[in-house]
Amino acid sequence: MRLTELKGVIPPIATPFDEAGALDLDSLRKLTQHLIAGGVHGIFCLGSTGECAALTEEESLSVVETVVEETAGRVPVLAGITETSTKRAVRLGRMVVEAGVQAVVAAPPYYHMHSQQELLGYYRDLAAALPVPVIAYNVPVLVKTPLEPATVETLAREGSIFALKDSGGNSNVLREYIMRTKDIPGFTVLTGMEFLVDTALQMGAHGSVPGIGNVVPAEYVELYNLCCQGEYVRARELQERLIKLFNICYQGSARLSGSSSALSGFKSALRWLGVIKTAKMAPPMGSLNAEEEERVREILVELGFLKQAAQGKEE
Amino acid sequence: MRLTELKGVIPPIATPFDEAGALDLDSLRKLTQHLIAGGVHGIFCLGSTGECAALTEEESLSVVETVVEETAGRVPVLAGITETSTKRAVRLGRMVVEAGVQAVVAAPPYYHMHSQQELLGYYRDLAAALPVPVIAYNVPVLVKTPLEPATVETLAREGSIFALKDSGGNSNVLREYIMRTKDIPGFTVLTGMEFLVDTALQMGAHGSVPGIGNVVPAEYVELYNLCCQGEYVRARELQERLIKLFNICYQGSARLSGSSSALSGFKSALRWLGVIKTAKMAPPMGSLNAEEEERVREILVELGFLKQAAQGKEE
Amino acid sequence: MRLTELKGVIPPIATPFDEAGALDLDSLRKLTQHLIAGGVHGIFCLGSTGECAALTEEESLSVVETVVEETAGRVPVLAGITETSTKRAVRLGRMVVEAGVQAVVAAPPYYHMHSQQELLGYYRDLAAALPVPVIAYNVPVLVKTPLEPATVETLAREGSIFALKDSGGNSNVLREYIMRTKDIPGFTVLTGMEFLVDTALQMGAHGSVPGIGNVVPAEYVELYNLCCQGEYVRARELQERLIKLFNICYQGSARLSGSSSALSGFKSALRWLGVIKTAKMAPPMGSLNAEEEERVREILVELGFLKQAAQGKEE
Amino acid sequence: MRLTELKGVIPPIATPFDEAGALDLDSLRKLTQHLIAGGVHGIFCLGSTGECAALTEEESLSVVETVVEETAGRVPVLAGITETSTKRAVRLGRMVVEAGVQAVVAAPPYYHMHSQQELLGYYRDLAAALPVPVIAYNVPVLVKTPLEPATVETLAREGSIFALKDSGGNSNVLREYIMRTKDIPGFTVLTGMEFLVDTALQMGAHGSVPGIGNVVPAEYVELYNLCCQGEYVRARELQERLIKLFNICYQGSARLSGSSSALSGFKSALRWLGVIKTAKMAPPMGSLNAEEEERVREILVELGFLKQAAQGKEE
Repeated sequence: MRLTELKGVIPPIATPFDEAGALDLDSLRKLTQHLIAGGVHGIFCLGSTGECAALTEEESLSVVETVVEETAGRVPVLAGITETSTKRAVRLGRMVVEAGVQAVVAAPPYYHMHSQQELLGYYRDLAAALPVPVIAYNVPVLVKTPLEPATVETLAREGSIFALKDSGGNSNVLREYIMRTKDIPGFTVLTGMEFLVDTALQMGAHGSVPGIGNVVPAEYVELYNLCCQGEYVRARELQERLIKLFNICYQGSARLSGSSSALSGFKSALRWLGVIKTAKMAPPMGSLNAEEEERVREILVELGFLKQAAQGKEE
Repeated sequence: MRLTELKGVIPPIATPFDEAGALDLDSLRKLTQHLIAGGVHGIFCLGSTGECAALTEEESLSVVETVVEETAGRVPVLAGITETSTKRAVRLGRMVVEAGVQAVVAAPPYYHMHSQQELLGYYRDLAAALPVPVIAYNVPVLVKTPLEPATVETLAREGSIFALKDSGGNSNVLREYIMRTKDIPGFTVLTGMEFLVDTALQMGAHGSVPGIGNVVPAEYVELYNLCCQGEYVRARELQERLIKLFNICYQGSARLSGSSSALSGFKSALRWLGVIKTAKMAPPMGSLNAEEEERVREILVELGFLKQAAQGKEE
Repeated sequence: MRLTELKGVIPPIATPFDEAGALDLDSLRKLTQHLIAGGVHGIFCLGSTGECAALTEEESLSVVETVVEETAGRVPVLAGITETSTKRAVRLGRMVVEAGVQAVVAAPPYYHMHSQQELLGYYRDLAAALPVPVIAYNVPVLVKTPLEPATVETLAREGSIFALKDSGGNSNVLREYIMRTKDIPGFTVLTGMEFLVDTALQMGAHGSVPGIGNVVPAEYVELYNLCCQGEYVRARELQERLIKLFNICYQGSARLSGSSSALSGFKSALRWLGVIKTAKMAPPMGSLNAEEEERVREILVELGFLKQAAQGKEE
Repeated sequence: MRLTELKGVIPPIATPFDEAGALDLDSLRKLTQHLIAGGVHGIFCLGSTGECAALTEEESLSVVETVVEETAGRVPVLAGITETSTKRAVRLGRMVVEAGVQAVVAAPPYYHMHSQQELLGYYRDLAAALPVPVIAYNVPVLVKTPLEPATVETLAREGSIFALKDSGGNSNVLREYIMRTKDIPGFTVLTGMEFLVDTALQMGAHGSVPGIGNVVPAEYVELYNLCCQGEYVRARELQERLIKLFNICYQGSARLSGSSSALSGFKSALRWLGVIKTAKMAPPMGSLNAEEEERVREILVELGFLKQAAQGKEE
């Protein structure tokens, strides 16, 4: 399968662990099926939501191989190769391509700071070294260096990058990405801002990469479809319902960081929905405790995403 | 050699590359000798200045093994194990201990954000898993999460960490680290702020980890000695002379990031001094070009660190 | 005229000066007519665009009196009373009410920092002291302290504030303001983010306060109407055309701050359109020079907002 | 008295209010005497600590006139004219000069953003319009725009400014101010960072402007003298004791902003010391409550700044 355009809903798949902290590939298979059953247009492995940076190389490849196998060509599989140098990203990129992905996703290298000119060189080197399309990823809150709109436009026009995922959080900048690249055939812009999918699509974005789409893939697909049909009033209603679901992200915030509270919240919800087995994170990221997980359950019930009855928690 | 206290000048050794981008271990050996000849009290491998994040695992171990061997026990060798999860840091830590270092240095994991409570767990896990002292490293400009003074105090009092390196850039916070830990036997605080070594020592810091100490180790040792002797007027004069030397860091700033302009500036100076062979950085970090390197030479000459004559540059 | 609801397009009117730096009330009258002719739903005096902070008390009152008189009740007139303490804001508020405004607009006091609890007290004190509705204004880039959504909701529910203007630049926060207050009868949210009016209205905002609406009031009114009619595709096209017009804001950016380059750009455009006489700002804010003003003219011509012919510039 | 050089300890005098919120000029007189008795080298009215931005013009002038009168020429009196435009600053400057001050202190205008070039014009205009020396004040945390070292050097060399007060919080920048201006006859740099007075003086600063110097003027004078004598070990001990006193600043932090908690903490301490009558702040800044004030008392007693006995609180 050769990727020709990236559109729709492409969740960054979570990486389930068992209680002992080992990869839980069974849960990962079930989660893959959960996403495909929800109608997603692709699956993105080894993103921030997938705890990319916490995995060893062996674990990373296991994740990719499992998702590729379980997906069985029904939707494209992408893998993150966000790394800390060109050499390291190329090395990881070759491995995930070998493992079967249709495209790779790379944010700027994330330890040192980089100039925009250095980023131009970076993406050109990745494009030259890898046989699949490279998707650029703007996420300065994690990698510090932003991808400026002019940089993205240059890379897009020359074909070094195939699409952009933006999680920058600045809607003005998202708009500038879109306006600068809208005339480039096949180039697409996807948003990672889960609260603002309807407005991003109205602006001209082509899809979303929602972390919480792990929990509610079908709803994000419906949101995408409503926007494509110009049904913005109904889209807004659904978007607002999904925003309320984000309360599952804040239940551990007294002890944990924003990252671990949110990601463990996604996992907890998936556990209550019967998809994966634990809400465990890779240390040092902490995980929700029983009381916090109970609040996640209450939120799911209250918003109608889970029936009141005694589901989950009896493993 | 068992480390009992960390004091003095412990430069974060640069990692030299050849023109093709391969590790230049010969230059690394000469640089190690240059530092020891300068009178340094320790050598820190795999720090930010050493481009830790750009090296493959194999390269990292080569660097450590080479420095350990070349040092031959004359001063302690430390290695950075700043990583992106507990599992990854422990793995790297065990390797560098195997390679012979006397202590490891770890900043908070640097992709996701972490709470202070998560950091407590992190350093305790490292201390439990590794047979050498762990030195905490505060460098939020690179790893985003700061080490709060209360966190450092807790870890220091319980013995989970052995020392702190602070490159946070906030002198109030450095002062708080010092005041909170001054009564803990053997615990030391070192500064990574190269412009402020004299004031840090006056405040009660026990040493420095100066990147530019690669270039002028003897001068940083002299600065340390002057401060220990209470010679603050002469210390200030020397500190100001060393601040002027920092102009070598800004010569590539029109094209490069602050990181690569500074680090390539150090390497260029070392090349002019005849210690290493190139100013090359690991991509995507860029390197100074010939014109920019010439300006580095002029700065060295002007400040008296290099004789006018035709040194260097005859490769 | 008693204000019952705040909706539509309410530009923050610019404050014209003559070449000597005195208020140019003739130009202010013409600008008022220009806005009303464009179909605006209200006029907001003494906003950031109106250089509120640069005016003396006498100048501030002259501006308000002139706009009130020239408007002659056709649309509501609002005045900014953003100040640095309760006593000072109440004093200014009473003066502008005396001068005839229908509502006042107040951002948090802007020299010291304030807690949310202090802001609750602030808006309650303003509401108690002033006989007209108070509109809260979130603009942390200028006043530093943000108005948190929970604070806005509390003040809105108890009736201390009548509406919110948001220029915070974070669409997630704008969405939260809207979601928290949508069930409060009569309470409205207006956006000051001129690039994102279509998406703000789609989210449920009730109008805009566009600085560049001084130049193109009719276009912002059309944008508002298109959104009200659910014509989001056409709205996007118009919004994108208006975004391109923002190039008039960047022509002085090599010398001036972002503020003065933008505001003098608005004034220059109004001068080319024959509405006001100069592009002068109140010092120390600088003004566009002749060459920069010429580029403003070219942008207006290129985008079709000005005919090529020899308009303007013959003073 | 004509000011020839600015050195030593120049506290930014607090502005006392009575319970009803009116200026308490009696307390202001006692506070002036308290400072002079402590040996200060000058008094700075209408600074941030003096709640400059909360006062009406009449109140501002009352403060200045009272302090000038009570000081009776024993030390220089300075007044802040930090404002939001050139015209407003010149107007206030003329008034305070009329009221008898020997110099004025001006941070960059603080509502809009300003370029460095605009700031050059600003200080030149102030210097031209006012018959007393102008002291520049770097405090970006409050006024947003920093005074870059190159700007300060230019203004200092041409004589537009007479001294610099730095409250920027970045010791590297303070050092750069000092190094760039040390050869300019008579030009001095004072620090507003109360935790770092000893290190600032070691670096070459000429004095301090400590807010907490309202409470303990004699101790800041002693700190200054110790540093002048090169007694850095004893200076550090005293500095550390003064840092501990800063706990009086954090007692209201659960309800108040950092600003009001700190400033009301200073006032509360002065009340316990019998110097002024209340800890009241100008609204919307809140004031410490009885419980919080009791904790201030405990801190004063614990650190030996107040005797245990039933002092204070019997008004």
